[in-house]
Amino acid sequence: MDLPSRIVITEEGPREGFQIEPGPITTADKIALIDALSVTGLSQIQVASFVNPKHVPGWADAELVVAGFAPRVGVSYTALWFNDSGLQRALAFRGKLTLAGFISLSASEPFALRNLNRDRAGQIEAMQNYARLHWQAGVPIAKIIVMAAFGCNFGGDVPAAKVVETVSDGLSIAREAGIEVREVSLADSMGWATPRRVAAAVGAVRDRWEDLRIALHLHDTRGQGIACAYEGLRLGVTAFDAAVAGLGGCPFAGQPGAPGNIATEELALLCEEMGIATGLDIEALIEAGRLAERIVGRRLPSAALRSGTLASLRRKVGP
Amino acid sequence: MDLPSRIVITEEGPREGFQIEPGPITTADKIALIDALSVTGLSQIQVASFVNPKHVPGWADAELVVAGFAPRVGVSYTALWFNDSGLQRALAFRGKLTLAGFISLSASEPFALRNLNRDRAGQIEAMQNYARLHWQAGVPIAKIIVMAAFGCNFGGDVPAAKVVETVSDGLSIAREAGIEVREVSLADSMGWATPRRVAAAVGAVRDRWEDLRIALHLHDTRGQGIACAYEGLRLGVTAFDAAVAGLGGCPFAGQPGAPGNIATEELALLCEEMGIATGLDIEALIEAGRLAERIVGRRLPSAALRSGTLASLRRKVGP
Repeated sequence: MDLPSRIVITEEGPREGFQIEPGPITTADKIALIDALSVTGLSQIQVASFVNPKHVPGWADAELVVAGFAPRVGVSYTALWFNDSGLQRALAFRGKLTLAGFISLSASEPFALRNLNRDRAGQIEAMQNYARLHWQAGVPIAKIIVMAAFGCNFGGDVPAAKVVETVSDGLSIAREAGIEVREVSLADSMGWATPRRVAAAVGAVRDRWEDLRIALHLHDTRGQGIACAYEGLRLGVTAFDAAVAGLGGCPFAGQPGAPGNIATEELALLCEEMGIATGLDIEALIEAGRLAERIVGRRLPSAALRSGTLASLRRKVGP
Repeated sequence: MDLPSRIVITEEGPREGFQIEPGPITTADKIALIDALSVTGLSQIQVASFVNPKHVPGWADAELVVAGFAPRVGVSYTALWFNDSGLQRALAFRGKLTLAGFISLSASEPFALRNLNRDRAGQIEAMQNYARLHWQAGVPIAKIIVMAAFGCNFGGDVPAAKVVETVSDGLSIAREAGIEVREVSLADSMGWATPRRVAAAVGAVRDRWEDLRIALHLHDTRGQGIACAYEGLRLGVTAFDAAVAGLGGCPFAGQPGAPGNIATEELALLCEEMGIATGLDIEALIEAGRLAERIVGRRLPSAALRSGTLASLRRKVGP
């Protein structure tokens, strides 16, 4: 097997989780989870969403959360925003946050129409404005996010050619705005990915853009997330998003109770047990996951929270 | 990818699930689940365990359950037993049950010592007696089950060489009893498997016995089950055990609340979405899984119960 020697996992639990939980979750609890995650070895944590509180009430306290957590040296804290108002709010935390935007485009037009009221041209126009804003503010664009990269509850299957077209749109938008983008994230928030679709999409993007770094943002909606992540590892993908304890879920998928992102500690376990370094302290992650469970007040999907690490069992067994 | 065109999934939910659930679960409920599973396209269902009710009170009603379900043509209904008393109880259902024994050997001696009070020699002796009993009764041995084939909570990592040694023990036992065995099941009831360990164990057994059919019995204890199943598919494994809704768990693992077997409907989904035939009606399986949840009265691990199939979404989307 041609597995990578090291990967980077971006923790999205706080941002993904607190946007979808019915809550209300206190600002102090959000800060406590971020602080717990900061000591797990994570190098990237997405901590907040600067979105319209009318649409996402769970993030009405984004400023308080970002102001409140204790940043740790060596960790990049990021946030999400979709427009100028969000960008301006984030700019107030320049320094504490690693500011970078994301050009988000849906590979499924029905998804974009339904949730953003935008067709392909409308998506492109919105992202052109978004990119321009970032250029003006001197804020980089970290990556192109291809939403619904594997399939869509409202549009059905998404062929790899559509993913390539969407990446191409994103790269054009960035280029026209004078911004360099080196990474594309293939996102499966509705849980359509299988290992075969991961291989097809990753292969098609690589065939076209040899130098573009590919990241996978996988959900475990139908229990396939970790198999898809493993296929990504086999293909040499080295960047993954995940959420501690499997926090999150897709607010647009219309499937309440379905799991969210793949669980950070389970992906880390898969990697560490196969000799792929993650830099993560899996036991500290599990502790953070248990804290997340106490905070949201319900059982979260991660199996590893129940069973713990193999390393801890090896210690009990002894040499 | 070199995936098989078809696999066979043996459903172990009733047997695995009802042995570990605190219950009590009524006989009628057990029968209802078996009957629901019978119409899902499964060709193999393990319906009961003829074990000592003092040790496994959940199966005190094994006779009533086996007498009560409505067998469907084309489905093999199997049961489990460990000694003569169990075999005799099963023999009363010759005809309704497809009777076959399993030579079970733990690849981890600490596991066998702790749970069966037997060292390697003791295990071999017990299984020699077991095989002799089956020869006398004219009941075949369906397979050798290697317990703790990937690792053990009490013994730590299990190298592939130990798996080979255990299979070799099992084949010798069968041969000495004049019984032919064509299949070996590598079982991971404590959740130590990773794709890499699956590849190592399957590879080692194949290298030694080219014609032996290999089956995988995977648990999702740490969320790695479906990735391990996918690795099995990649290696051309065509026989898997699974449990509807992810019923079950390892009674000896000492990890209450950890998931049990991989969920039948999630494995079926993985296969069907990659073009591997299973013969299963995944939506009927999900319905049976929801019935299992109502019966056990708690949320079972399967994500697919929450999110449903992609086929159902495709139907909504239309052509």
